[in-house]
Amino acid sequence: MTSANQPAAGRYPAGSAAFPHRDLTGLAGLAPWEILFLLDEAEQWVELNRQPHKRADRLAGLTIINAFFENSTRTLLSFEIAGKRLGADVVNMHAAQSSVKKGETLIDTAMTLNAMRADAIVIRHASSGAVRLIADKVDCPVLNAGDGQHEHPTQGLLDALTIRRAKGDFGKLTVTICGDILHSRVARSNIHCLTTLGADVRVCAPPALMPAGIEAMKVTPFHDFDAALDGADVVMMLRLQQERMSGQFIPSPREYRHLYGLTLERLAKAKPDALVMHPGPMNRGIEIDSTVADLAGRSAITTQVEMGVAIRMACLDVLTRRSRGVEGWA
Amino acid sequence: MTSANQPAAGRYPAGSAAFPHRDLTGLAGLAPWEILFLLDEAEQWVELNRQPHKRADRLAGLTIINAFFENSTRTLLSFEIAGKRLGADVVNMHAAQSSVKKGETLIDTAMTLNAMRADAIVIRHASSGAVRLIADKVDCPVLNAGDGQHEHPTQGLLDALTIRRAKGDFGKLTVTICGDILHSRVARSNIHCLTTLGADVRVCAPPALMPAGIEAMKVTPFHDFDAALDGADVVMMLRLQQERMSGQFIPSPREYRHLYGLTLERLAKAKPDALVMHPGPMNRGIEIDSTVADLAGRSAITTQVEMGVAIRMACLDVLTRRSRGVEGWA
Amino acid sequence: MTSANQPAAGRYPAGSAAFPHRDLTGLAGLAPWEILFLLDEAEQWVELNRQPHKRADRLAGLTIINAFFENSTRTLLSFEIAGKRLGADVVNMHAAQSSVKKGETLIDTAMTLNAMRADAIVIRHASSGAVRLIADKVDCPVLNAGDGQHEHPTQGLLDALTIRRAKGDFGKLTVTICGDILHSRVARSNIHCLTTLGADVRVCAPPALMPAGIEAMKVTPFHDFDAALDGADVVMMLRLQQERMSGQFIPSPREYRHLYGLTLERLAKAKPDALVMHPGPMNRGIEIDSTVADLAGRSAITTQVEMGVAIRMACLDVLTRRSRGVEGWA
Repeated sequence: MTSANQPAAGRYPAGSAAFPHRDLTGLAGLAPWEILFLLDEAEQWVELNRQPHKRADRLAGLTIINAFFENSTRTLLSFEIAGKRLGADVVNMHAAQSSVKKGETLIDTAMTLNAMRADAIVIRHASSGAVRLIADKVDCPVLNAGDGQHEHPTQGLLDALTIRRAKGDFGKLTVTICGDILHSRVARSNIHCLTTLGADVRVCAPPALMPAGIEAMKVTPFHDFDAALDGADVVMMLRLQQERMSGQFIPSPREYRHLYGLTLERLAKAKPDALVMHPGPMNRGIEIDSTVADLAGRSAITTQVEMGVAIRMACLDVLTRRSRGVEGWA
Repeated sequence: MTSANQPAAGRYPAGSAAFPHRDLTGLAGLAPWEILFLLDEAEQWVELNRQPHKRADRLAGLTIINAFFENSTRTLLSFEIAGKRLGADVVNMHAAQSSVKKGETLIDTAMTLNAMRADAIVIRHASSGAVRLIADKVDCPVLNAGDGQHEHPTQGLLDALTIRRAKGDFGKLTVTICGDILHSRVARSNIHCLTTLGADVRVCAPPALMPAGIEAMKVTPFHDFDAALDGADVVMMLRLQQERMSGQFIPSPREYRHLYGLTLERLAKAKPDALVMHPGPMNRGIEIDSTVADLAGRSAITTQVEMGVAIRMACLDVLTRRSRGVEGWA
Repeated sequence: MTSANQPAAGRYPAGSAAFPHRDLTGLAGLAPWEILFLLDEAEQWVELNRQPHKRADRLAGLTIINAFFENSTRTLLSFEIAGKRLGADVVNMHAAQSSVKKGETLIDTAMTLNAMRADAIVIRHASSGAVRLIADKVDCPVLNAGDGQHEHPTQGLLDALTIRRAKGDFGKLTVTICGDILHSRVARSNIHCLTTLGADVRVCAPPALMPAGIEAMKVTPFHDFDAALDGADVVMMLRLQQERMSGQFIPSPREYRHLYGLTLERLAKAKPDALVMHPGPMNRGIEIDSTVADLAGRSAITTQVEMGVAIRMACLDVLTRRSRGVEGWA
């Protein structure tokens, strides 16, 4: 724990009275203090969640709708638990049974959720930009739980919280993100978040999985994983989607592991106390070896899951303050 | 808002002590005052749902089971939110994972829900009459959330509430319902509700989608949509199910829109302030044009969704009063 | 009701301060007093569940995750209702939408649930032993809701509670379990439970559905159902899984009914007041005739369902006492 873990009102603008965004659709464009504020707020929920009685009544009487147009067990569970621990009435809308299948437009679905007087809507969707589209049509805060290849902002925040609790000041850190950078919303949110907070971010991918012009995001691209790992404080591995494991993007999973899998030998290129991260679910033996994934004192993979619930509680709490009439830094 | 929006005890029988039905399986056979009583009760929930803190504890400690043998995102969400805002413990039983698939009879499923000591069971089923069958076997109130081509009573009630809030006294209104009258439980519940309340109801459909002998339901049938719209106060469009869009019932969606789609030009045949309604989900460009669906001050489509939650709260509250020991009009 | 229904502290070891197991993965190995303690604890919940206001706040602030890797409507509903009536925050993880499908290992899924700080995890899985595997990896109590052909301990407990409430002292009872003994986790849990409590247990199955060496479980095997029924106090029929209704195991459902179906005539071989049980869902007309399943005063099938909720409340309450700081017999 470093002092960076403690909420510090002095970090926030003196004249400001509240978090200045209604929605959380992405981390691109957030100011450093806005991100730090959400991390600071999450600390109280990390503590609460470690108690036997992990319940606040802050969102009592509010209705949160988790509208998941794309399946995701972990993220849905995490948001559902977050909402319930804050005392909200949480309802899940599963895509599999959705009116969307009956030909309804996404905007009509959004208008329907809005008319039911949701106090916050959490959306996951396979299309980039779908969350912004919905946010523009409803009257309540909208939280992006992952949209296409765009952003997954709560993942970026929970990763930053995990890093801060282990390593402290971002300005002194080198973070290496390795995997399918091209298609990964996790990578995009992490890049926005970590570069904003001042970290030195390296991205590493096979040529076919590296976006053109990635340098514009203030990161350093690598194709050689060993070089990318050299002296890194944090190694963040991305999940290789099964549909990309053959043919067009990589020759084979075995070849991928050979060049881009995190093994114990390769981890030794990073700093001796480098943190190992993975957003899950892992393909053990492909992008990460089990010996690394389970490395005591180094792997932060389950801590990331724990921070996820706390970050989502913080976001739900902060974004609903305006409608609850709770403002300011108190 | 008209005075008809305000609950008025004088409307109800002086000698009666409670709503005289255990279940809500349909609107056929309800007395005018019984329907008005449910609409009156819903008003308080419309108000509550517009507050940031939208929670009553009236059903605390009660278990409500939503048993949906047929998928329906909107109706399930609406009932789930209604139950939770009243403080009940709400559990959903999804057909997709049901014992019904294992060959269990519907009645055995009902007996199982009953034995778990449900305080109310909300049922949606693809077969007409399935809800009544279940209601006869259980000890608690049963609410019909749509059964086959029979009834969808809470839809009829929410539509009536929407109309009353916009137009007032039903006795002075002409309501035109257009679409697949033959297969529509929404149409049936609306016809029962609106004719009982004294409205002049017209139904309009292509010949193949109009039930024989519909005049017996005290409505006037039309095949010419323009004639049916003439002077109407309310235009209620029905969803055209995709499985009926070709062949047996209509030549093509394009032909259907040409004859029975609600366009701006056609809406001009109705009264200048005629209300536009649709139970959703809409097929924009088929039974209703987007310009009409989104017409400010005229389209009540999202208001219908809002009234839906309030009506379901009213029904859950009223029907569980006996078991809670709360009776009378207080 | 017999005096055996009343909790009696004298039954439990004087020196002990708590239920001595963190998990409930099976009934094999439990001491008689441990089983009786869970039955005794369930009695209060039977009473509560018969009230209109069926809510305790004992588990308020606790998070219970129902992780169902195998679908089961009844058991999931029962656990969900049990958790909610105790005031817990209950979340369901459906296998159909699980990361397991993305290739994640079962242990990684377990670690994820654990990292979200679940206070109890209820697991159903198609593989025998999967629940034990998970229990070894997490920090909270794990309850087995059925794993492969291993055990279904809450079913065994609810059956024992049903029998005790109807028949009293187990030491005087003969219980006949008939059906697919080979594959049935229900049979296994019941055999462990009832033999531990001192009942005389007979098992009856066609030769292909009887495990070799079943005598080692302290039961008497029969292939002749009439002989197995002779003088029985309780007749417990098992569900015949549809995938075993033809070919390898039995000639045909008709043949199965002829030899092993419980008909009125056959029931007459048992004691005149013999109790009829079935864990559900039933194949009416195959393993049990409708006349028997619905026999008033004899069939305990819906009572079993009712006892199920009470037993699950008892198990959730008792197993979370340690983390809640509630110990002893008070």
